[in-house]
Amino acid sequence: MQFEINTEFLEQVHDAIQRNDIRFLSELTHDLFPADIAEILNRLELDDAKKLYNFLEEEVASEVLVELDEDVREKILESLSSKEIAEKLIDNLQSDEAADVIAELPDEKQDEVLSHIEDEEQASDIVDLMNYDKNTAGGLMQKELVAVNANKTMLECVRELRKHADHIEDVYAVYVVDDDEKLLGVIPIKMVLTTSLRSRISDVYDKDIISVRTSMPAEEVAGIMEKYDLIYVPVVDGLGKLVGRITIDDVVDVIKEEAEKDIQMMSGITEDVEHSDKIWMLSRSRIPWLLVGLVGGIFGSQVIEEYEGQIRIHPEMAFFMPLIAAMGGNAGVQSSAIVVQGIANKTLMAEGILRKLGKEFTVGLLNGMICAVLILGYNLFFSDSMALSITVSVALLSVIVFATLFGTFVPLALNRYRIDPALATGPFITTTNDILGLFVYFLIGRLMYGFY
Amino acid sequence: MQFEINTEFLEQVHDAIQRNDIRFLSELTHDLFPADIAEILNRLELDDAKKLYNFLEEEVASEVLVELDEDVREKILESLSSKEIAEKLIDNLQSDEAADVIAELPDEKQDEVLSHIEDEEQASDIVDLMNYDKNTAGGLMQKELVAVNANKTMLECVRELRKHADHIEDVYAVYVVDDDEKLLGVIPIKMVLTTSLRSRISDVYDKDIISVRTSMPAEEVAGIMEKYDLIYVPVVDGLGKLVGRITIDDVVDVIKEEAEKDIQMMSGITEDVEHSDKIWMLSRSRIPWLLVGLVGGIFGSQVIEEYEGQIRIHPEMAFFMPLIAAMGGNAGVQSSAIVVQGIANKTLMAEGILRKLGKEFTVGLLNGMICAVLILGYNLFFSDSMALSITVSVALLSVIVFATLFGTFVPLALNRYRIDPALATGPFITTTNDILGLFVYFLIGRLMYGFY
Repeated sequence: MQFEINTEFLEQVHDAIQRNDIRFLSELTHDLFPADIAEILNRLELDDAKKLYNFLEEEVASEVLVELDEDVREKILESLSSKEIAEKLIDNLQSDEAADVIAELPDEKQDEVLSHIEDEEQASDIVDLMNYDKNTAGGLMQKELVAVNANKTMLECVRELRKHADHIEDVYAVYVVDDDEKLLGVIPIKMVLTTSLRSRISDVYDKDIISVRTSMPAEEVAGIMEKYDLIYVPVVDGLGKLVGRITIDDVVDVIKEEAEKDIQMMSGITEDVEHSDKIWMLSRSRIPWLLVGLVGGIFGSQVIEEYEGQIRIHPEMAFFMPLIAAMGGNAGVQSSAIVVQGIANKTLMAEGILRKLGKEFTVGLLNGMICAVLILGYNLFFSDSMALSITVSVALLSVIVFATLFGTFVPLALNRYRIDPALATGPFITTTNDILGLFVYFLIGRLMYGFY
Repeated sequence: MQFEINTEFLEQVHDAIQRNDIRFLSELTHDLFPADIAEILNRLELDDAKKLYNFLEEEVASEVLVELDEDVREKILESLSSKEIAEKLIDNLQSDEAADVIAELPDEKQDEVLSHIEDEEQASDIVDLMNYDKNTAGGLMQKELVAVNANKTMLECVRELRKHADHIEDVYAVYVVDDDEKLLGVIPIKMVLTTSLRSRISDVYDKDIISVRTSMPAEEVAGIMEKYDLIYVPVVDGLGKLVGRITIDDVVDVIKEEAEKDIQMMSGITEDVEHSDKIWMLSRSRIPWLLVGLVGGIFGSQVIEEYEGQIRIHPEMAFFMPLIAAMGGNAGVQSSAIVVQGIANKTLMAEGILRKLGKEFTVGLLNGMICAVLILGYNLFFSDSMALSITVSVALLSVIVFATLFGTFVPLALNRYRIDPALATGPFITTTNDILGLFVYFLIGRLMYGFY
């Protein structure tokens, strides 16, 4: 049942498609869940994928459609007419899925598909959903829900539920509204089973309900659902009218995407790319931070140039330049990663910025001393220059302490100015610490060589 | 309703606790959700937190307990007797939450608390759950669920539901089992409302059901729930017997933790730490990779030492050492981040390793050329050494291409040997690229200076 796709299996499917082995293919598509079929389609050659897709029954085909990778979906939809898309696929989808699929189509085709949808209410729901920014609660929600007026009885509530149960995928709750369709509260579905059918809804429903506004950013919706352990959340418009609901499976995708965005940002990638994207996109997403690194490196080269005379006399100074620069980068990235996570988690708010810096100072001092002592031992043993040995250790300690503080401060500062702090945990911290590290190193070097 | 804690508000709460303002405090605790109260407690001074916690009603107190930060929960539980914990708190919790809370207690206290639990079935459920590794399906699941024998009728199913509805927080489905308690399928709760009460369950239940084994790693459970968009999943033991269920809100935490672990690993942090952890823990979590960086730096220094003569004659070679090292690190981290995400996403499986490397090679070549041309322009303008200008550009191009390939290859290789590929996207890649970059730089330098 849990099922793993390997190359061998894909070969088998390919062969079956080539020789049009209807029995094999219909068994395959009957036995598997839509998400599995989508995974197979994602990994087949496009021509095979199209053929296999045409094999699917209408209802399965629409479920598979929403699970496909965007580029495969695009290609498959291209090969279908607007009428087919509207009648065979969209008709079987929930409003939010339908709106997402249609939004991906080229503009002309969008209108054509919409005009072919027979159920007018569905068409207007879809058009409505397409108006919301996809990174807001409005963009995440679906229109399908069961609502009941507070003045009705539980019996009427059950009738309402029965009426809608068929075309709503999952029903976990009935929402309670007033005469103006304003959201009042909720009846968890288990309450329907345990409450007398004669009860008035206004007497039994749960008034302590958390809802979100259509305009709330998707990230915030995710935060609220996580914090309050919600499986579903109703969405209201500016007037408090119930307009939709969001289920947690849609929000899980938001959470995953957020984490991915952070990782990419921390790695110096400016756009959301995947390995499968086109080469120029992969290149474009990486070049900005490479250029920043380049400019940083040029500044670094100017710092070193200042000390050209010193290097000429003491070329051994050059040996440890990369070590100093790299250690500053490493220590800086470590502290900023912890701060960035603390900000994302909201676990970092409690204490003031000075206490935070104080704590990181201690950590930096501790780790800096460990590293400085080790490298001192190494140099006393292997290097003949006392001045160099001391310079490297003192510079290393200073650089680690400084980088630790800097790595803590920068994301906090960025966050205050509402810039994503993950930006700090990457090439920016590394580059700045490189330059400052070299500066400190040569400054201490000049002092030490003067002294000895 | 959505509610933001600020320092001012915390001051207010502190004052109310100090002057024992019962009215303010009971209003506060009545109006807020348990997750909000927990957030306040997390951020109050410990003495205040204990006082406020004692103010809560039993049921709220137990819900708040599970939402608290681990260290605050530990402190609050310390101030309560085993009897109080068992009777006031554990009694109101779901089995999985109860097991988690008890598992955090010191060993002696665990037994005491268990012996004070009055409901024997609950006690045995908790003991049972405590046996599972917390990073497996068994460790995530709860025992509370509604199951019904396939030979019964829907009427009996409804009775079963009514019987359990009270002490199960959320009921989304009734599981169908055979005489040996083996899982056969599921009745979504909406089916209960739309099916005739006289139907035999064996005729109506849904047999296409996804379940997980108790031993399945938590990560894998998360992957399955994500892939199939599941809100809940039943858990079976080795014999296929139904033993529990997992709801998605527990899995959301797993997903978040996974992402955090990846970010920490990529930043060179070896343990799961937070800024609020003790200084020696913060230090310990960071020192291993700093030491790796240190050793890498020492190797780098030896590479440079080999070329001491060259630096003595051409000290300008030293100017661009950090630039070359840093650019290799940046480019390497960028590619490995994309590969690591592709592995995590399972979007990367389709093509062979050679095609992946080929694509990254092109991206590296493109970006390397852009950077090389820019730095060449800079050097032709500002440097008088043609040899240096060419060396820097050629070395930069080579280093970026090499680092891009290396950053792609290493996580793929680690993954093949079942080592977490995120390990690669951090100090390891940076350090290795530093050393190799310097080596390439001086090699090309020697060539160029020989030539000119």
